[in-house]
Amino acid sequence: MRQLTVELAELNEKLLEMGGFVATAIQRSSQALSDHNRELAEQVIREEPRINQREMEIDELVTRLLALRQPVARDLRFLTAALKINTDLERMGDLAMHVAERAISLIHHPFPQRLVDIPQMASLVQSMLLKCLSAFVEGNADLARSVLAMDDEVDAARDAAYDRMLRVMQENPAQAQAAIDLIFVTRNLERIGDHVTNIAEDVVFLIKGVDIRHSSERVEDKIASADRG
Amino acid sequence: MRQLTVELAELNEKLLEMGGFVATAIQRSSQALSDHNRELAEQVIREEPRINQREMEIDELVTRLLALRQPVARDLRFLTAALKINTDLERMGDLAMHVAERAISLIHHPFPQRLVDIPQMASLVQSMLLKCLSAFVEGNADLARSVLAMDDEVDAARDAAYDRMLRVMQENPAQAQAAIDLIFVTRNLERIGDHVTNIAEDVVFLIKGVDIRHSSERVEDKIASADRG
Repeated sequence: MRQLTVELAELNEKLLEMGGFVATAIQRSSQALSDHNRELAEQVIREEPRINQREMEIDELVTRLLALRQPVARDLRFLTAALKINTDLERMGDLAMHVAERAISLIHHPFPQRLVDIPQMASLVQSMLLKCLSAFVEGNADLARSVLAMDDEVDAARDAAYDRMLRVMQENPAQAQAAIDLIFVTRNLERIGDHVTNIAEDVVFLIKGVDIRHSSERVEDKIASADRG
Repeated sequence: MRQLTVELAELNEKLLEMGGFVATAIQRSSQALSDHNRELAEQVIREEPRINQREMEIDELVTRLLALRQPVARDLRFLTAALKINTDLERMGDLAMHVAERAISLIHHPFPQRLVDIPQMASLVQSMLLKCLSAFVEGNADLARSVLAMDDEVDAARDAAYDRMLRVMQENPAQAQAAIDLIFVTRNLERIGDHVTNIAEDVVFLIKGVDIRHSSERVEDKIASADRG
């Protein structure tokens, strides 16, 4: 087997392992929040440097392969996609850690209302991530595209949670801080969903060589949506 | 002059131009918010696709140079840094657009209190970006490092704004939605500051070959800070 093939397989494995760390961090931080489990939240925070470490190793490996093997065509696309996926995974690790931080903060501001949307949002983005990693491994562009549609569900759950929290604040101003913490949690989960979407787009690009970023955006929709408030 | 030198200069110019678009978007969205200026906010939203277009062109150019010129050493570092800086600039453009969207939304939820922190935060992150672009052009690692320290000021301004908005919500629940909108604006500006920090770290890496990411992070500080709530 070519040396480069072996090295790309190693890179592939490192990325998947990092993806696994991130999926675990999402799961645990959401669990910590639901269960008011401080130890689990601290574990997410303590293990986050491992994700950062992996990010730097992957960047180094990619740069080394670009320099030494001078890859072309699909191998080159794989390496530039790996650099981007790596950055997205690291940011997702940060965001999961922010959820864990809010879980700790919320222990001090107990919040009576049941967290209907949050565990659901967390399991949705986690499942998006796992699907996306499968699509990457299998080279399955359709599976990667299916992740893009799931992001709309995440956004809908975020909007529902926002409306609910706004009512809480208006009816019970003393709970404003807890409600804002929960709104931030939903935003962090939404941003995790956005990063998975980026990765899904990179996977499609890698497989098909077609750049689908920004293809469905409409300026007038954005203005109208801002207008609705 | 070598062909690659000419192409790298072209890439450099494209990145700087994109940085200029982003700096303008930050300035205008903040101005639109302060002045309740809907047209200016719409302009930011309408011009954002130009930033996205530039992002795709830069990615393509970098990939082409990696494939055709097979660069090594500093040229290779420049190209991988360009890929990352490009991604960060595009995200900053998104965030400036989100500020513009909030500016429109806030026209419907007029907010009496003067926006003390927001224009200050906006001009701070804009100045970080411009410094960072200068550091990139001049190859000045010290200047890039000085940007990192400025990010603490941004975080402090965000915290001050948060405390003020929380009081607003508690004292006047009818203004909760406007206050949350403003909190989101400060978060968007803070995230713009984070992206500038990423770019500053890439610039240091490019000049010095030293990866300074994650070097100053302490897990215990994060847990203690979450505990303070």
